[in-house]
Amino acid sequence: MKKSLGKATHAMPTPVWLVGTYDSEGKANLATVAWGGVCSSDPAAVTVSLRKARHSYDAIMERQAFTVNIPSRDFVVAADYAGIASGKNADKFAAAGLTPVKSDLVDAPYVAEFPLVIECRLLQTVEIGVHTQFIGEIVDVKADASVLDEAGLPDPTKVQPIVYSPTNRGYYALGEKVGQGFDTGKQLMK
Amino acid sequence: MKKSLGKATHAMPTPVWLVGTYDSEGKANLATVAWGGVCSSDPAAVTVSLRKARHSYDAIMERQAFTVNIPSRDFVVAADYAGIASGKNADKFAAAGLTPVKSDLVDAPYVAEFPLVIECRLLQTVEIGVHTQFIGEIVDVKADASVLDEAGLPDPTKVQPIVYSPTNRGYYALGEKVGQGFDTGKQLMK
Repeated sequence: MKKSLGKATHAMPTPVWLVGTYDSEGKANLATVAWGGVCSSDPAAVTVSLRKARHSYDAIMERQAFTVNIPSRDFVVAADYAGIASGKNADKFAAAGLTPVKSDLVDAPYVAEFPLVIECRLLQTVEIGVHTQFIGEIVDVKADASVLDEAGLPDPTKVQPIVYSPTNRGYYALGEKVGQGFDTGKQLMK
Repeated sequence: MKKSLGKATHAMPTPVWLVGTYDSEGKANLATVAWGGVCSSDPAAVTVSLRKARHSYDAIMERQAFTVNIPSRDFVVAADYAGIASGKNADKFAAAGLTPVKSDLVDAPYVAEFPLVIECRLLQTVEIGVHTQFIGEIVDVKADASVLDEAGLPDPTKVQPIVYSPTNRGYYALGEKVGQGFDTGKQLMK
């Protein structure tokens, strides 16, 4: 017998992604989101949801672009900070000691210090109540060579992404590997 | 200097959620997705993306409802299996030893054995290339009493959700807590 908890966003896990944008004055900004994910394989695309009041909202609309910057666990202070402060009155890159790098593919900056970044051009917006969902087509993924595995792909044990739970607002590290996709479940195939 | 990896869904972390549906014949089915996330706080809403060829696609369209079932790490075999097999020719609940429970709120079944489930009514669909994104309004969240913390909220260390990385198709456990949302970053506020 399960206990009813009502209409709440008690889903987990969620990502911890910092959305990189340039505002109307060209200032680089970051906004941390947990409301987001991959939404499509072809075109490769991700979503991030922002409230209209967020400084990044106008920036994405104007520039039609954003980046998704994936912090390693070492950057949890910067990640949380970028979700609390507003780019309207703070230079979050400077305050967090991070370096904006202008993407050569889209009109948005990415974080030099983060191991894995995704450059997106705005594909579509979807209005859902208080949030606007931005769907970004992935134009390129860039990674530090140090986090790549032998196949040349980002190794999550090296990227060390932060995992969030909106239930208790906790940030968590990635734990041990417990299975392999499209393989572990084969034992149940008849 | 970062290395360019091209247009790929190298985002992480992603969730491991089993989408519960009834098909046109009333058979309960499950489809595992990593393409999904929370998309809105009010209304509380989640997204899951499915290809049109998936058996669950027609089911959601017909019933206008689905559930999101969050497995603990102990169910990684079932979770992976439900992403490989098709409900067109398999009874995934039976094969995985799981029990469908008819939701009393939406026309979809949830998984009795999973610690945390979310009942959704279909709010909107968004076409994005090969995937359709289903946006579900959260009608209720249900949890086993054993996974609730002192505040009555789902404790991620008790739910033990599985975390996925599409880069290497690895399933991971949740690791140790590394920070607290809306608190850890305050030290950078001026």
